[in-house]
Amino acid sequence: MATRMKAGIIGAAGYAGGELVRLLLLHPYVELVFAQSNSQAEQPITNTHTDLVGETTLTFSSDMTAEVDVLFLCAGHGAARKFLETTSVAATTKVIDLSQDFRWNEQTSESIVTTGERAFVYGLPELQREEIKKAQHIANPGCFATAIQLALLPLAQESILTSEVHVSGITGSTGAGQQLSETSHFSWRTENISTYKVMQHQHLHEINRSIKQLQPNQQPAIHFVPYRGPFARGIFITAYTSSDLTLAQATELYQSYYAQHPFVIISAQNPDLKQVINTNKCILHLQKHGEQLVITSMIDNLLKGASGQAVQNMNLLFRLDETTGLKLKPSAF
Amino acid sequence: MATRMKAGIIGAAGYAGGELVRLLLLHPYVELVFAQSNSQAEQPITNTHTDLVGETTLTFSSDMTAEVDVLFLCAGHGAARKFLETTSVAATTKVIDLSQDFRWNEQTSESIVTTGERAFVYGLPELQREEIKKAQHIANPGCFATAIQLALLPLAQESILTSEVHVSGITGSTGAGQQLSETSHFSWRTENISTYKVMQHQHLHEINRSIKQLQPNQQPAIHFVPYRGPFARGIFITAYTSSDLTLAQATELYQSYYAQHPFVIISAQNPDLKQVINTNKCILHLQKHGEQLVITSMIDNLLKGASGQAVQNMNLLFRLDETTGLKLKPSAF
Amino acid sequence: MATRMKAGIIGAAGYAGGELVRLLLLHPYVELVFAQSNSQAEQPITNTHTDLVGETTLTFSSDMTAEVDVLFLCAGHGAARKFLETTSVAATTKVIDLSQDFRWNEQTSESIVTTGERAFVYGLPELQREEIKKAQHIANPGCFATAIQLALLPLAQESILTSEVHVSGITGSTGAGQQLSETSHFSWRTENISTYKVMQHQHLHEINRSIKQLQPNQQPAIHFVPYRGPFARGIFITAYTSSDLTLAQATELYQSYYAQHPFVIISAQNPDLKQVINTNKCILHLQKHGEQLVITSMIDNLLKGASGQAVQNMNLLFRLDETTGLKLKPSAF
Amino acid sequence: MATRMKAGIIGAAGYAGGELVRLLLLHPYVELVFAQSNSQAEQPITNTHTDLVGETTLTFSSDMTAEVDVLFLCAGHGAARKFLETTSVAATTKVIDLSQDFRWNEQTSESIVTTGERAFVYGLPELQREEIKKAQHIANPGCFATAIQLALLPLAQESILTSEVHVSGITGSTGAGQQLSETSHFSWRTENISTYKVMQHQHLHEINRSIKQLQPNQQPAIHFVPYRGPFARGIFITAYTSSDLTLAQATELYQSYYAQHPFVIISAQNPDLKQVINTNKCILHLQKHGEQLVITSMIDNLLKGASGQAVQNMNLLFRLDETTGLKLKPSAF
Repeated sequence: MATRMKAGIIGAAGYAGGELVRLLLLHPYVELVFAQSNSQAEQPITNTHTDLVGETTLTFSSDMTAEVDVLFLCAGHGAARKFLETTSVAATTKVIDLSQDFRWNEQTSESIVTTGERAFVYGLPELQREEIKKAQHIANPGCFATAIQLALLPLAQESILTSEVHVSGITGSTGAGQQLSETSHFSWRTENISTYKVMQHQHLHEINRSIKQLQPNQQPAIHFVPYRGPFARGIFITAYTSSDLTLAQATELYQSYYAQHPFVIISAQNPDLKQVINTNKCILHLQKHGEQLVITSMIDNLLKGASGQAVQNMNLLFRLDETTGLKLKPSAF
Repeated sequence: MATRMKAGIIGAAGYAGGELVRLLLLHPYVELVFAQSNSQAEQPITNTHTDLVGETTLTFSSDMTAEVDVLFLCAGHGAARKFLETTSVAATTKVIDLSQDFRWNEQTSESIVTTGERAFVYGLPELQREEIKKAQHIANPGCFATAIQLALLPLAQESILTSEVHVSGITGSTGAGQQLSETSHFSWRTENISTYKVMQHQHLHEINRSIKQLQPNQQPAIHFVPYRGPFARGIFITAYTSSDLTLAQATELYQSYYAQHPFVIISAQNPDLKQVINTNKCILHLQKHGEQLVITSMIDNLLKGASGQAVQNMNLLFRLDETTGLKLKPSAF
Repeated sequence: MATRMKAGIIGAAGYAGGELVRLLLLHPYVELVFAQSNSQAEQPITNTHTDLVGETTLTFSSDMTAEVDVLFLCAGHGAARKFLETTSVAATTKVIDLSQDFRWNEQTSESIVTTGERAFVYGLPELQREEIKKAQHIANPGCFATAIQLALLPLAQESILTSEVHVSGITGSTGAGQQLSETSHFSWRTENISTYKVMQHQHLHEINRSIKQLQPNQQPAIHFVPYRGPFARGIFITAYTSSDLTLAQATELYQSYYAQHPFVIISAQNPDLKQVINTNKCILHLQKHGEQLVITSMIDNLLKGASGQAVQNMNLLFRLDETTGLKLKPSAF
Repeated sequence: MATRMKAGIIGAAGYAGGELVRLLLLHPYVELVFAQSNSQAEQPITNTHTDLVGETTLTFSSDMTAEVDVLFLCAGHGAARKFLETTSVAATTKVIDLSQDFRWNEQTSESIVTTGERAFVYGLPELQREEIKKAQHIANPGCFATAIQLALLPLAQESILTSEVHVSGITGSTGAGQQLSETSHFSWRTENISTYKVMQHQHLHEINRSIKQLQPNQQPAIHFVPYRGPFARGIFITAYTSSDLTLAQATELYQSYYAQHPFVIISAQNPDLKQVINTNKCILHLQKHGEQLVITSMIDNLLKGASGQAVQNMNLLFRLDETTGLKLKPSAF
């Protein structure tokens, strides 16, 4: 590729925005031309993302400063839609939104959500890579939604996700963003466990929609208990459902489904969350106990659950190898 | 009480043994006359339990050094039964065993397990306080078993625990004891999450037995996903089951069941684990979502889940107020 | 003691206030008659200090609701002085202030600071227990100030703290209080280390003043590097200075100095912070390397470093045994 | 570069070995041809380094399986020397040893240590990049030694490191390796702080030797208090010494010294350890307080403090750009 693509970020001072900056600075085919922030405009990026000292001398802009090939929206839920309604973005610019604004539509069961003339394609490559390649606008999935869908999609694809699904999942603190809150206060959160939005997590909408897309005639109830855990990065979920498949059959199904998807790995190892931290991978692990098929799914919430998946989508939009710029050294510890 | 009871501990160098030493040194009616340890015999207790420096000058003994009124066995699974089979313990000595050796009997569904002439009563005061008071030997419940039973017993008592029960639970590292292992290595465990014994945790035996005791004609399946969490103390479980009760009805049922049990509290606050750390309390929290009654249960695994409950049982055995020596300052942070 | 002392707390919704509530609820000779909070007035205490559910049904008051024997001020730096200047407090009420407002006086080198008619005695029992017993108003020392002074006072008492002193120390997150801030955000603080106020920590004032009080003719420079650590509770400091004492001589000196002080223990064990957590103890450990005498000092910042020391001072003011209500079960893990 | 260099690792199952595998798999000019392990021979690498599932199908070898261009020794202290004494390694193979076996020589003050015919050059690029480029064998520096030297070398280069130096430093748990021990037990280490080898850390040898190399006529005493911290990765040190330099002069000196060294950055931001985690960077921060020049230095102990620096040395040995394969996405959280 002779020239680099020009990329810009709206809302670059937050966690997802910072991860995007880190990824794009290392991406061989991207030039980051602006990183916008309302709160930090005109400040050096390294004042906020202090680990980038020595890596960039860019300052946050207050606005879009140039036309770009791809625009990432990290503005947050609600703000993304408002941004697009009030800002002139070139028609040729591809837009990848990391908020939930365009992920699902209450009125329809479709995976395309529109605002004005823009139609957003739900950007889970392991569900619909071909649709993504052809899209102009992408709604990047939620973090829990990614982990849970990757655990369930192979069953739905075969229309055999028919029994109730029981999911428990634990998220790190970065999942709640950088705003200060009581549940992200270190004194409270360290060595602590709590639940939130039990049975009511908003990501269930996307998950149910994707399952319906694959198996339109079956919509099993999904019961989801989300936990807040005392760690910064990562999502670990365990899902189980009654299934006729043997472990061998299930393993074959999952391996087949993900054979062409480089970031999803079926592992025979006992899973632990740090296997995926600082990578764009999703590691799945299967067990069978009695009638219950148990699927563990782990991702880094800021990468495969947010900014890494956004770059994966960008790679698809621009027909790059899906893994470009995403072969990351795991932190491991 | 004019004279203090004499107490001894077998296996006092481990975590549960250490907690017992801490509790008994502060108990107003107990004199700790020996603390036995195979590995640390003749060493000062404060070499192992370094926080007790200045509190005691006792050394670990290699054997029982005196007849005692109450003997706590913290020897570990398997070792407790062997100890009693090979050691002469005065018939008048009350024995409280913290291992799983006498908690359940594969052959029977009863809550009394025997070895030789000794009959062990299952020591969950909130299940059978009166039986405990009359007992000579107590099998102290498991930590997960305590948390899960306290979440479910009121329903079983009314014979309305009839639907499948789904439980996820997270335990701190002290639950695995002080032996060194890969999953208790700091570099591995910090900021990490993993599962173990999915659907196969050994505590399900005690739980199922207690439920059968209360509602002999119904035995719902209990699906249990145990997690290892990156924290030292505590157990947090979430159980849900389909129920006809409204939230108000469930709350009334639970409040009524635990009205006379000082250590179990029904809280309307959103639960977080540190509410119970360094206390003997179990905090329960109820929610209703659709048909699902969701019960959260939290304990300190080393106190209400082990040594605190053992002291609670001792208090009952000796007709002391159940809370004697167990009004502890929460650590809170 | 026939009747309980009446106690009140101003600023009871913060960390130090919460610890005081926990301690006073368990104190055998105290009745907590009010717990004031501006922000939480009329709310149940258990809404804020959720671990106290089941322990108290008190609500925060907006004001002092009764005359009390002892009033604890946890209002914060600056607010304590303002409170006393604007509020009518009975002359017979003893006041213990936990802020820095009355700890030292820029103009004088004395350990008594006055406001209006009130003269505050610096409340470090191991420095001046007799003065505290006779006092009406107490300025409770700072947390780092307590740990560092207890490490150095025996040398100053002998007028042999003459060489430069080098101190590094690490504090947990509760030392910064419950207000939300970037450096107390979990995502930032977990697994992180940072310094703050290097060579400029405000507690050096109290420390230098106490040393001057004991050895008026020598004032060695104290260099202090404070660290923020990824843990909630505790302060660990290491001080070293050139000294002629052998290790044996130093040990004897320290043991002699603290022989009558029940909360300070000279330990031969290698120190680790959790030895003192959830206790009112200070553990000191001595080493000698070449000419350097190295003193480690560890406290729980919220107890011996704040609320525990305040109760210790209260006990002295009312001629109770100094340890009343302060024999606490260590959390150990 | 037409062909990739062939690399092998002895002792690849440990922490440093694992990091090397992670780095070399991503290095554009290296082919990892074997990864030897005594304990894990014939097992898949991903059984031990579970995060690499999907990245490699290599198994650990029991021995060197081929001649290589570069051999990394992660065998551990003592074992490296023994390996070279007992194993035939091709004379053309460049060797990079990560143990302390060849870092310093008690008999001489030189930076070259020999065994048999092999002469090891001390591999701190910021001290002697040109000597490294010409070397055949490299002794990779210690982790604390790297952080402390990078904080002090500019002063020594100017022969103005003449006053006593006071250093405190905190290391994460991975610094102690993967072997199980009481001080790496999660239950002990979490939320804990302790010291070890106070004033006696073995890395002082290398540090003193390098300083003597730069300023032969001055050898100031270095007092070093090492702490163990409750985190997995990283080293944070604070050094101070009396200096005539103003802050501006010191900053200019350090910027000048490191101008040609891409991994060392002088930052004006307040330092926190996570700025360098999962990178090969060293971030330095300077303050001046009175006469004291205070230097903070932070590295990832497994990268710039071990395996990253080893790859940096490899790049120099083979005349690659020093940063090849070392532009890593920081984990940041």
